Amino acid sequence: MLEAMQRLAALDRERALLVHIGAILGWDQETYMPENAIEERAEQLALVEGLAHDKAVSPEIGELLTALEGRTDLGETEKAYLTVARREYDREVKLPSRLVTEMARQTSLSQAAWVQARKNDDFSAFAPHLSTMIDLNLEMASALDHDSPAYDVLLDLYEIGSDERSIGEVFSVMKADLVRILGKITSSPQVDDSFLARKVDVPAQQRMNEYILDALGFDRKKGRLDVTAHPFTTTLGRQDIRITTRYLEEFFPSSLFSTIHEAGHAFYEMGIDPHPDFRGTRLAEAASMGIHESQSRLLENIVGRSFPFWTRHYPKIKEMAGNGLDGVGLEAFVKAINRVEPSLIRVEADEVTYGLHIIARFEIESALISRRLSVEDLPEAWNAKMKELMGLDVPDNARGCLQDIHWSMGAFGYFPSYALGNLYAAQFWDCLKEALPDVEARMEEGDTAPLLGWLKSNVHEPGASHLPGDLVFRVTGKPLDPSHFAGYLEEKYRRIYGW
Amino acid sequence: MLEAMQRLAALDRERALLVHIGAILGWDQETYMPENAIEERAEQLALVEGLAHDKAVSPEIGELLTALEGRTDLGETEKAYLTVARREYDREVKLPSRLVTEMARQTSLSQAAWVQARKNDDFSAFAPHLSTMIDLNLEMASALDHDSPAYDVLLDLYEIGSDERSIGEVFSVMKADLVRILGKITSSPQVDDSFLARKVDVPAQQRMNEYILDALGFDRKKGRLDVTAHPFTTTLGRQDIRITTRYLEEFFPSSLFSTIHEAGHAFYEMGIDPHPDFRGTRLAEAASMGIHESQSRLLENIVGRSFPFWTRHYPKIKEMAGNGLDGVGLEAFVKAINRVEPSLIRVEADEVTYGLHIIARFEIESALISRRLSVEDLPEAWNAKMKELMGLDVPDNARGCLQDIHWSMGAFGYFPSYALGNLYAAQFWDCLKEALPDVEARMEEGDTAPLLGWLKSNVHEPGASHLPGDLVFRVTGKPLDPSHFAGYLEEKYRRIYGW
Repeated sequence: MLEAMQRLAALDRERALLVHIGAILGWDQETYMPENAIEERAEQLALVEGLAHDKAVSPEIGELLTALEGRTDLGETEKAYLTVARREYDREVKLPSRLVTEMARQTSLSQAAWVQARKNDDFSAFAPHLSTMIDLNLEMASALDHDSPAYDVLLDLYEIGSDERSIGEVFSVMKADLVRILGKITSSPQVDDSFLARKVDVPAQQRMNEYILDALGFDRKKGRLDVTAHPFTTTLGRQDIRITTRYLEEFFPSSLFSTIHEAGHAFYEMGIDPHPDFRGTRLAEAASMGIHESQSRLLENIVGRSFPFWTRHYPKIKEMAGNGLDGVGLEAFVKAINRVEPSLIRVEADEVTYGLHIIARFEIESALISRRLSVEDLPEAWNAKMKELMGLDVPDNARGCLQDIHWSMGAFGYFPSYALGNLYAAQFWDCLKEALPDVEARMEEGDTAPLLGWLKSNVHEPGASHLPGDLVFRVTGKPLDPSHFAGYLEEKYRRIYGW
Repeated sequence: MLEAMQRLAALDRERALLVHIGAILGWDQETYMPENAIEERAEQLALVEGLAHDKAVSPEIGELLTALEGRTDLGETEKAYLTVARREYDREVKLPSRLVTEMARQTSLSQAAWVQARKNDDFSAFAPHLSTMIDLNLEMASALDHDSPAYDVLLDLYEIGSDERSIGEVFSVMKADLVRILGKITSSPQVDDSFLARKVDVPAQQRMNEYILDALGFDRKKGRLDVTAHPFTTTLGRQDIRITTRYLEEFFPSSLFSTIHEAGHAFYEMGIDPHPDFRGTRLAEAASMGIHESQSRLLENIVGRSFPFWTRHYPKIKEMAGNGLDGVGLEAFVKAINRVEPSLIRVEADEVTYGLHIIARFEIESALISRRLSVEDLPEAWNAKMKELMGLDVPDNARGCLQDIHWSMGAFGYFPSYALGNLYAAQFWDCLKEALPDVEARMEEGDTAPLLGWLKSNVHEPGASHLPGDLVFRVTGKPLDPSHFAGYLEEKYRRIYGW
């Protein structure tokens, strides 16, 4: 490798070290940090993010990029790396250090305020933080691209190459599919999932989670599972990927499926390795949040809520559930964990209505960011949207606009990734089944290694080598096509609801 | 406050933020970090310590110090701060950045190697790391003060104002006292502690620890308790002080007393507050490691192993111990937890033989640092010293020279602080009893607030305002005097062994 390329990668790795240090601070804040530490933690995070930003915008990087971009003797990986490094460098140099550290500081405080506000169902305690996060996002969007609508700029941060129009188009096809399928489901007899509300104590749920992580081959030398208010996956080092869950004693599937979901994210992070020379650089990062979410949703829903998967694992889980699953057979269990019903909480939503939750957030955050909606009117707008899309009344803000962590973290434009993830996942899955025709037979034997291996080679390893749209095309031979998801849902729910 | 002083304190606080970030990384490494993360963690720690060092040696600090030292209008606290800031600045500027980051990186790797080597009783796997840590310490000592013996320079880092001669003199008085008292004890009938080996499961021990921490008023909003291979206290933020313990199912006092010990350290850290203007600066740090240790030993031994303390708490602990303390009364319990007997493991040693463990390490590390003893000969030298001082044969290195974490961390010169801590603690205690004549009566009622309050005002709050020797003089009205410790031991063990 050219000396200049080595140097560029080395500078990039130092930046990544700081990003990972920030992740350690963030993980600790959510898991074990004593309450009074929050103010200094915000200062610590601001300092680290400022230092990471300083590393990212070092003039030496700009010089190295310019010098390397003039070369004609570079390999494919090197060219891909330069493209990514240039894109991120150009982005970061537009952000003033002051803004970066201020966002880090405010995010840390805002997240802590959100936890309390949700606990106390007190929107007014969170509102000023939300306003601050919106202001900072608008400032960031304007710094990145003064000429485009702010929400487009933000969407592009999470799903590069996307904007409100392109996502809106995909979502409008998806919405029609979901409404149609939901219609078929609601006119069929409802499945019984009442037994899922039986009490299963936390230690038993922890054993289930550890069992499933083992079954999936989650390597504890490179990761771990902890408890937080909101489940997440975070990368604290190249070989240190941690996931979290939360426990509801009277609905154990919440923790079980969030664990499988986060494991999907973790496998992606653990599997990224476009080239040994570029470990620890920006090339060894995810292609996008939507691709990331495709991996968690594929594992949670397509694999983790399937008959083949539970054929093997259900007897074990039933045993661990104490009396929780007495008298419940495999068929009834799989139907129950796939029950479809409009509901208030996104993270507990089924696969069909989930997309509607996302459409609601997409429309609301667009309105917040464009100032068509004021922060103080958010609860009302939220509740109206839930009525419109789900037909439900929201009883309080804790189960309404305070339920998600994202806006408290200033992550506006992130929600659409979740629905895109469902669409990508179904398209990848159709392709995977062609490549591995016995994948479901292997799952029935408890062997998920072939499917995870296929995902690793095709989706995980390339990292950020391709734009998300290009990756989908390379893997599946065509652009994003929402019909795969609709087809998957039709087939799955036809069996479950027997229409 | 003068603007220059404000600026100096602000720069100092940024340095402290980085030191605390390093502590978060270190705490995580010892508690929850997945195994494969160690190599990157070493890089992360090296980066953070390098950044902290860079902050500490910023030329602006030198200029501010020089400007402020010329002022004649400073108050006592400001003068004390300048003295400390100057001392630490002069120290840090002598250390090359390369050495600082190299020490951080090697320490992280060496600690991880020590954990494995101790587990496998494999000295040879640790020896190269130990050699590296010695080389780095010699390089550091030489950089700090080329003209003094290296071990003197290192001792001064932990106990400022001390050297091998001064500590040797104190230790020789202490050794004579310990040998005399040990003689009286060994010629008295031994107390029975066999029941302390009854099995008490880890959850029960955890409940005991949490109970005792509550009883002592350990504030969970500012701290927490976790499990590590070696108990320690660490400061992750001004309001984030964490302690750790380890559990031995067949000797529950190990965890209980290590928890009380570390709580003593934590109360010190939580109590430091020389002046609101200097929070987060070097003035708000411990006076020395010896003073630190005086606080942990006072709480663990003088308070935590006393009759008055257990009068109140023994019934609760007995209840939590399951069958572990069946048929054991208060008198028998307190005698058992104070049983004196030469033993192999320092951290499990009684108050009388503990000092002999320290004298052994003091003599051995002096020999290692002066190269009178080679690393490969350490096990033999260790075993010979244990025979000489304790009359014991060391069966393996895990219970011999691999038992302590300190050398793996490159902390040569630290061990004497532990014995100095015992001496300071007894001297403070005699003074405290004069000031609070009813202190033991209050302890019998479960009220340790007065004694902790006295320690806070007199010992904790001043932080680094005074050199350790000066602090002892200010608090007790005289210089360090080992006769307080001897007197305390005589009185205590006369009752326990009934001579």
